[in-house]
Formats: sequence, structure tokens, C-alpha cells
Amino acid sequence: MHTVVLAGGVGGAKFAAGVQSALPNPADLTVVVNVGDDFTHFGLKICPDLDTVCYTLAGLENPATGWGRRGESWRVMEAVAVLGGPDWFRLGDLDLATHLERTRRLQSGQPLSRIVADFCKAWGIPARVLPVTDDAVPTMVLTDEGELAFQEYFVHRRWQPRVRGFRFAGAENAKTAPGVLEALRVADAVLLAPSNPFVSIAPILAIPGVLEALAGKPVAAVSPIVGGEAVKGPAAKMFRELGVTPSAAAVAAHYRGLISHFVLDKTDADQAATVRDIAPHVLVTDTMMTSSAKRHALAAEVLAWVRGARDTI
Amino acid sequence: MHTVVLAGGVGGAKFAAGVQSALPNPADLTVVVNVGDDFTHFGLKICPDLDTVCYTLAGLENPATGWGRRGESWRVMEAVAVLGGPDWFRLGDLDLATHLERTRRLQSGQPLSRIVADFCKAWGIPARVLPVTDDAVPTMVLTDEGELAFQEYFVHRRWQPRVRGFRFAGAENAKTAPGVLEALRVADAVLLAPSNPFVSIAPILAIPGVLEALAGKPVAAVSPIVGGEAVKGPAAKMFRELGVTPSAAAVAAHYRGLISHFVLDKTDADQAATVRDIAPHVLVTDTMMTSSAKRHALAAEVLAWVRGARDTI
Repeated sequence: MHTVVLAGGVGGAKFAAGVQSALPNPADLTVVVNVGDDFTHFGLKICPDLDTVCYTLAGLENPATGWGRRGESWRVMEAVAVLGGPDWFRLGDLDLATHLERTRRLQSGQPLSRIVADFCKAWGIPARVLPVTDDAVPTMVLTDEGELAFQEYFVHRRWQPRVRGFRFAGAENAKTAPGVLEALRVADAVLLAPSNPFVSIAPILAIPGVLEALAGKPVAAVSPIVGGEAVKGPAAKMFRELGVTPSAAAVAAHYRGLISHFVLDKTDADQAATVRDIAPHVLVTDTMMTSSAKRHALAAEVLAWVRGARDTI
Repeated sequence: MHTVVLAGGVGGAKFAAGVQSALPNPADLTVVVNVGDDFTHFGLKICPDLDTVCYTLAGLENPATGWGRRGESWRVMEAVAVLGGPDWFRLGDLDLATHLERTRRLQSGQPLSRIVADFCKAWGIPARVLPVTDDAVPTMVLTDEGELAFQEYFVHRRWQPRVRGFRFAGAENAKTAPGVLEALRVADAVLLAPSNPFVSIAPILAIPGVLEALAGKPVAAVSPIVGGEAVKGPAAKMFRELGVTPSAAAVAAHYRGLISHFVLDKTDADQAATVRDIAPHVLVTDTMMTSSAKRHALAAEVLAWVRGARDTI
């Protein structure tokens, strides 16, 4: 009974934390995380999605922002600002420690997946967290202002340029990190977190071997679009700029051929029939993870439902 | 009337600050700083001597330690320790900002000297601070345990291995930073701060062109050895391990042929006659810079003395 969650971003981290708390044995969870957002800043390797997932699974996350750490301080960045340095990417003091030690270990030749495993241990995370790959596969955003590196688009430009497409640079030659394909092989359920389909989930699916490993599995996606808008971030704006009206059904259609299960928020209950043409199993429930209790409840319901429905696939 | 101070370490920084405060126009001071201590840690370029000099000239230094910044905090390193990272080189939060922004700018292709100039401006330093070179010339310490990188020897091993010699790797091909030779050319006095002769001053003198630029100038050295011991750090221990009894006179002898002036602490007044065989001009005074007032007084006395004695050289 192994569960794999594919995740990126704040919604993905919250959902993964819900699954971790809902499973009888949290060690039965592997979270495979997007690394397309990773970049180098101030000479440090920064992995925003991995860190958001880890901080959230460890209970160290900043509940106000969803990203960064609880009890964070900003001494370093304030002193950087005095020197005229860039402060568009906010690096808290506690968060910086993660980037420093990760960079040190990467430069000593250790693979990212091993570093993440040790960090998870240090932070007391019971689930397993894996970067989808140890290779650099940076997401490039094709916009009407040209191709932008992901964080340039996402944070520096506050996702305002119009999107025309995405490129996961080097994905075709990347290898999944040790454990990723094995976790998918033994999983009896794979859950696509309510993360951005274009820039959180797609870069995971782009690594050779991942899509193939999902074939024939119960694969459930939770919609990140509720009431026609993204719960957080640019997903709805991206759908629109790519010529698709954003909706839960549009997310399901985006995952056509990949998913057997789809979870809609109750706000979008009227789309259940449409979605059923794409995924045979549709769950309508409250997907808003506005508290630890609610993310636990959503994960528990989804897990029970996917497992109960398994025989009918 | 231009003054150049060659400096490295805490004693060098204090003396440079004294000269800056004693000169009628502090912009008439150029401090040429050792970069042999520089190293990369956590992926960041760290320049301990440059930073100690700049913090001290800006009045930002930690008066308790002599290195690092006043009002420093340790949030980042505490979080690094949780991850099992190395904490032998103590990087404060405010200090880290300097390393982050310097690393970012170096990686964008800017020379160290330009970065230091901008930092000095941001910190309101009236004097000019120049790294002796923009090239990497790391000091290697030859010990009875083999050759050690400087910070490995100095901080990690707390200067305990026995020293056999020093190597300034790449010095022969290094170029002085823009402004260094010009500052020396126009200087009417060059002052060797009471810094370690082997690992603070020698790496400056090792850069091609510096020694030649000193020829025929009034060059005054202040002894870093007082009462047979170093005021701070391993200078006396190094003299002993290299087979020389540490003393002010031994420092003067070390600088034979280079210096015209030598400043002894009053504790060592009995060595004045010996020193006079090496440098024609000898000043005996209180060299202990235990307060801002005392470092100002020492610098004022040395400046007046070197200028007054100029005609007799």
C-alpha cells in the first residue's frame, strides 16, 4: 500500500502534508517534487518547490504565506538591500540556511536527492521526498516578451507577461532520481496534487520514464482551479493565455489519458458530468485546504475513495 | 599628500581606521588589503581581511571580536547546524549579506575591486579600500601535516599545525588591482600595519609590481609583536616554528631592505638600537590600539613622525 503524490508549489505542499497525516503509516508516502523552478541566485542553488514541500511536511512552513519558514526573519536581505543588491526574491534567514548547506553539498558532488533525504531526516519528516530528477531541468516560460527563466517570470515579473508555452530545458536527457520509478511501480495510487498543471506537474511528467510508470495505475488529480480561478498563482491566467477557459473541467481535459480519477471542488459540482467523460471516477468535495484539519480531511477522503474505487477501474 | 596602508587582519583594520580618522582628509588614504585569506564556503566568496577592514573603517565592526559585525545575529548558522552543516567558520547574518552580494556580482563578471568600491560607498567609508589584486591568489600554509588552505589552517585547525612555510598560489601571474600601483606611486608615505608579516603583508608584497613601487619611498612598519608575543593571532608562533625568536626586532629584520621607518611598542624600547641598524628611523610609543582614541593617537603620531622625518631619509 504505497502512495505517490506528484507535487509542486504551495497547494501541492499542503496536499502532500494532508496525505502524510492521513496515512496510517506516513512512511508509505513518497512525494515526487518538481524541480523546474530551481535556480541559482547569489551563487546559491535554490529549490523553491522542494523547500515548500519539506517545510510543510515538517510543520515548519509559514502559514501566512504558504512559502518560506515559520518564525522567519530578514536580517540578511535587509543588509543585502543596504548594498544595493536585488531583493525581488525574498530569502529569509532560516530559509537561507537550507540554500547554503544544499549548495555546499552539491558543490562537493552529492546528488540533490541524497541531500533532500538528509534534510528530511534532520527536520523529522516521516514521508519520503524525492526531486523528480537530480539533473537540472529548468522551466523556461515562452512569453510575448520572449523566453524567460521561470523565477524571472514568476517572482521578478510577478507572472505578468503573457504566456505562449513552456520548455523544460534538457528534460529529454534527464534521468529520474533514484527511487522515483520504483516508488511509482509499487504505488497503488498516484495523486496529482492541486498544483499548477503547466509549471508544477508537467515538468515532473516530462522526465523520461514517469509517464510510462503511471500507465495502468489509479491516477487521481485534484483540481487547482476552483470557480474558474486558481486557488493561488497563475494557473487560470495561463489557461486563458493559452486559449482555454479556466475550469476544473479544463484541468481534467488537460490530464486526459493520464488520469482515472478526478477531484472537483463542490463549487464546480455542475462540471462533474463533463469530467466523467474524461475520468471515470469523479469525486465532488470541499477541496479548500484552509487549515491543517481541512487538508487532512481532503486527503483522507481522496485516499479512501481511490482505494475503494480501485476494483472498478 | 597621499598615504597608503598595507593591511590584513584585525590589527591592520584597527590601524587603517586610526589613519583614516587622523588624516585631515580621509580621502587621502588608500588601504591596500590582503586577499590571500579569501576562500569559497557554501558556494560564497568570502574575503575576511577586506571585510574586517571595511567594517572597521565604517564603524560597523564587532568591538568584542575585532572581526564580524556589530549587533550581529546567528540565525542562519543555527539553522545550518540543524542540517548538520559545518559551523567552524562563523558566518553572521549581517556578514552573510556581504558574501551573498559579493558572490552575485563576481558571478556576473564584475571585478572584486569595483565591488569593494561600491560596498565602501554604501557603508559610507571615506577612505579608498583596494584589494591588492582582483585575481585569486590563495595563501597555502606548508605545515608538518602537509599543505593546508589558509582558512583550513587558520580557523578550522585554529593555527595549531606547525608551520614550515607559505605559498601564494598564482601570485607570479597576478595583476595588481586598478589603482594600487598609482596609489603607491603618488603616496608620500606607505605604512605597513601591525598585521601578520607572513600571511597578511607578505601576500600583498608578492603581487608583481608592489615591491618595486615601494622602492625609495618612506615605508614605515608597525610591529605586530609586542613583548615577544603577537597582539593577536599566530605571528609569534610562526616566527618560532620558522626558527626565529619572535620580537619586534625580528619583525624589523624580516622587513630588512623594504622599510625606512619602524615603530616599536614602549614595552620593547630596549630593542630600538638593534632596529636602528635595519631602519634608520625608529619610533618607540604605545602601539596597543585598545580603543578608538588610542588607534587614532597611534596613527596621528606615526603620520606626523614619518612626515617630519621625511627630509632626513
